[in-house]
Amino acid sequence: MDERLKKQLDFSLEIDKEKNVFRQTHLSGGVRRENDAEHAWHMAVMAYLLREYANEEVDIGRVMLMCLIHDIVEIDAGDTYAYDQEGLITQKAREDAAKARIFALLPQDQGAELTALFDEFEANDTADARFAHAMDNLQPLLLNHSNDGGDWKEHGASAAQVYGRQEKTRLGSRLLYEEVIDPILKEHIRRGNLK
Amino acid sequence: MDERLKKQLDFSLEIDKEKNVFRQTHLSGGVRRENDAEHAWHMAVMAYLLREYANEEVDIGRVMLMCLIHDIVEIDAGDTYAYDQEGLITQKAREDAAKARIFALLPQDQGAELTALFDEFEANDTADARFAHAMDNLQPLLLNHSNDGGDWKEHGASAAQVYGRQEKTRLGSRLLYEEVIDPILKEHIRRGNLK
Repeated sequence: MDERLKKQLDFSLEIDKEKNVFRQTHLSGGVRRENDAEHAWHMAVMAYLLREYANEEVDIGRVMLMCLIHDIVEIDAGDTYAYDQEGLITQKAREDAAKARIFALLPQDQGAELTALFDEFEANDTADARFAHAMDNLQPLLLNHSNDGGDWKEHGASAAQVYGRQEKTRLGSRLLYEEVIDPILKEHIRRGNLK
Repeated sequence: MDERLKKQLDFSLEIDKEKNVFRQTHLSGGVRRENDAEHAWHMAVMAYLLREYANEEVDIGRVMLMCLIHDIVEIDAGDTYAYDQEGLITQKAREDAAKARIFALLPQDQGAELTALFDEFEANDTADARFAHAMDNLQPLLLNHSNDGGDWKEHGASAAQVYGRQEKTRLGSRLLYEEVIDPILKEHIRRGNLK
């Protein structure tokens, strides 16, 4: 088999491991936690359906691909909970090492392309990245809202922390921030689910 | 909240259930079965990386979206194993009812769009659908190959059955059929994993 194809298949098998990286978010119904592959799938579908609410024009194919690959580094680096202060300190170094190893499995051109797309997501300074970040925040919030804010209660998350993170949603979609995120957070503050 | 946005969010939450639909395929390592959301995510990433091997030019954004949504009907209809002869008889009726219910949760235009995309996948007579089908077949084959053909052994699948299904892969990508699928199947026949 051609070396290029072999590398593409090796990478394809490697990313199967993303299904074993579990997040803090629980599926709706609360029975078990969600894994990164499920989260990425859900974000990509939501990005397509909600693209009309992006602040700026986006290339939806790129946004979907960005959603699909944005957590691949967690195969090595693990999931870092958004409100885990200690984990956040080492997150960048862990994810950089993972990025170098995993994308190097691909043919050089494709490894460089996905690395650049991953970096663009992280830097969050393009329209596509900002809208992908909005989905990265909205998707778990919808699940957590359906579970009466269980993930926030479990971790004792504060309203200030959650609002801080959701600022990124506003950068990608003011409408989703104002019509969805903000009313949901206010409701959970009122119900005592967010400190 | 606007009625259109409410419908989009209701649908977004509904499809979370796809993570609870488990397939016969096991993840690499064999510890547990794969669910539909994970499978769809994996197929979409592979479609992007392997698009250079499609027999015909494809619109990769459409192919990825088709991969992402092609199993949503299984939320109601359940997964039908490719070699389950009894299940295959009732599959169409179960999936038609599911399609009508689930896509009707969306605003009319988006429900119609995703229904058409789902139908295009099922009919398998466009370049995009044929390449998506190739991914639908190649992805579980890679996992099963990594598990020494465990899924075939568990179900007593025959070489004739598997070759029959993989004909669809050839329609989407002759190269992947000839360079990947066929050599893998021959190896498992030789090792006695396929009857």
